[in-house]
Amino acid sequence: MIYLDNAATSWPKPDGVIKAMERALLGFSSNPGRGVHKGALGAERIVSHTRELLAQLFNIQDPSRIVFAANATHALNQAIQGSLKPGDQVITTTMEHNSVWRPLKYLERKGVELKAVRCDEFGQISPAEIERNIQSNTSLIVTTHASNVTGTVQPVKEIGKIARKHGITYLLDASQTAGVLPIDVVELNVDLMAFPGHKGLLGPQGTGGLYIRAGAELEPLIQGGTGGNSELEFQPEILPGKYESGTLNTVGIAGLGAAVEYLLAQDQAEIMQKETYLCESLIKGVSEIDKVKIYGPPDRKGMAPVVSINLAGVESNEVGYILDRAFQIAVRSGLHCAPQAHATIGTSEQGTVRFSPSSFNSEQDVLSAITALKEIAREF
Amino acid sequence: MIYLDNAATSWPKPDGVIKAMERALLGFSSNPGRGVHKGALGAERIVSHTRELLAQLFNIQDPSRIVFAANATHALNQAIQGSLKPGDQVITTTMEHNSVWRPLKYLERKGVELKAVRCDEFGQISPAEIERNIQSNTSLIVTTHASNVTGTVQPVKEIGKIARKHGITYLLDASQTAGVLPIDVVELNVDLMAFPGHKGLLGPQGTGGLYIRAGAELEPLIQGGTGGNSELEFQPEILPGKYESGTLNTVGIAGLGAAVEYLLAQDQAEIMQKETYLCESLIKGVSEIDKVKIYGPPDRKGMAPVVSINLAGVESNEVGYILDRAFQIAVRSGLHCAPQAHATIGTSEQGTVRFSPSSFNSEQDVLSAITALKEIAREF
Repeated sequence: MIYLDNAATSWPKPDGVIKAMERALLGFSSNPGRGVHKGALGAERIVSHTRELLAQLFNIQDPSRIVFAANATHALNQAIQGSLKPGDQVITTTMEHNSVWRPLKYLERKGVELKAVRCDEFGQISPAEIERNIQSNTSLIVTTHASNVTGTVQPVKEIGKIARKHGITYLLDASQTAGVLPIDVVELNVDLMAFPGHKGLLGPQGTGGLYIRAGAELEPLIQGGTGGNSELEFQPEILPGKYESGTLNTVGIAGLGAAVEYLLAQDQAEIMQKETYLCESLIKGVSEIDKVKIYGPPDRKGMAPVVSINLAGVESNEVGYILDRAFQIAVRSGLHCAPQAHATIGTSEQGTVRFSPSSFNSEQDVLSAITALKEIAREF
Repeated sequence: MIYLDNAATSWPKPDGVIKAMERALLGFSSNPGRGVHKGALGAERIVSHTRELLAQLFNIQDPSRIVFAANATHALNQAIQGSLKPGDQVITTTMEHNSVWRPLKYLERKGVELKAVRCDEFGQISPAEIERNIQSNTSLIVTTHASNVTGTVQPVKEIGKIARKHGITYLLDASQTAGVLPIDVVELNVDLMAFPGHKGLLGPQGTGGLYIRAGAELEPLIQGGTGGNSELEFQPEILPGKYESGTLNTVGIAGLGAAVEYLLAQDQAEIMQKETYLCESLIKGVSEIDKVKIYGPPDRKGMAPVVSINLAGVESNEVGYILDRAFQIAVRSGLHCAPQAHATIGTSEQGTVRFSPSSFNSEQDVLSAITALKEIAREF
């Protein structure tokens, strides 16, 4: 099996991930902050350690401003639902994933004013367009860092600057970039940032988190036991507990820690270079196919390692199915949970065939994909 | 280390749990419902399989009525926040965990009428008291199945009958009983049931779920991508997707499946008998200590395997600390995230020292705990 679906879930994981999970499950299996015995304290240490590694990766000074979540969708819901109230305006783009779009549409029904700035055919947003739409009631700007459909990276630094200038909270959806592109929350002027653990960060499913800049205030979405301040009838104000009710996925977080440790030990520039090279090779190869349409900006510099294509007149799901069954190549096809993005690039009907390599892929993997696509194109 | 903190997190887990997690992470590492390739379909199968096993365990006819959650707290928040609106009355008890109590107090601020029926000194609730408090605007009754502080099992069948009779939704918090006591959602007339995966079900942390009876309507707490119905701008209506936005903890759910498979292969009556015996032995042994106060009902028949005690005049956390450091015995001490329950049994200041054995404990473990407590009592 050639795995080219890393934008959904990265695979394989670094060796240390399963080992760390095994250690956590077999050795420390208990609840962080829920007791004074060694097991509980061990679990607490695992969680703190992963928090510190993530803080290091994203240049977050205070690790307690990172709260763990079941996945990026939960983190995004916490950020969006926790910060918007009826009467507020929120600015977003037409390249967002349903994990941003659906909470916003839901809140629109409850009286939040939703402005989605249209991206161009390559999925690029203009920061000036965002600024032009700011009103006195704008309280949140939310954009993806890179599109999960086209890999287009947004000018987030410029958007962050605009948000800061106007005193508006900026929420970054780093679902496709955390662990893939360098992220410095200070440099980007990001107030809130949601990230999954199981994609570019190379951790297991069931992990992810939200960075909340000091001063950014959110209403907790989930209320419950937080270990500390057990006597309070309301959610305690102290982070990270305020946003981490219930028993954390200690085992998964242990795995995520091992994954981030692996990432921090790598040369990130080298990894990016390899992934870009794989994407460029793929594009170069498939460009030779007559029927191929490639989406996203022509200049792939600094893009996320995602390549979406179509064969003219062929259902993307059919291509995906044949790649899997006849060629043992795993990709993602159809609509990628981002209907607005498909509308933006004109693939609402057909969807796209999406290739997303990781640094664990070889050039041979890409060559096999090209050969397979050529054969499929010949059949239709 | 003698582990007697299974009411927080069960330990050890059956051997199959880590193996299933390893298989999921190393082999199928992808997103259920997010693609057509074999990896994605494998992940989908893992999740469906665990859903079916849980349905079998709880006598749930349609497995798709079980939705996975990060933990029982998330499931309870989904149930509570998803069903109550301003003007509704909710009836609960004074033995609830903060995972029930805090969302209710939060909603009380938003205009929900909260009635907490007082339990007796043993933590027992009277079903008649619940019925007496029903009003025309009562829309939800929520009770714990068994207290995490005293192990007291509530008359949930009677409460379920009352709720059904009055057409009121009944939410059961099975945090301390799922996998420990037999649960038949049909027999108990339960409409909603939240359960953790990492306690009595013997699965890993980061798992749990909510059973939603057909006909029970909840507003989804989290909105986002669900794999299917990707083109919709709003959350799709189909279960389980409606309540499972974002990538599930596939790896954890694989582990949970192995754990439930293990449970289903055991003689549950035999396990209960062993756990009851361990609790009774513990109570018998510590009763000989002058300074000991034991909480919960004197008749332990049908109770959850939780024993809370105190040594007169000694901080429960101090006892917990000494048990860990000097005797390598892991228990939970202090307030157990249930301030109302502590008020009910009169331990708001002192908390309790809580012993919670599982069927993996031996009689020797309990005897060691008794000996340790005797030595500690002698010191004070």
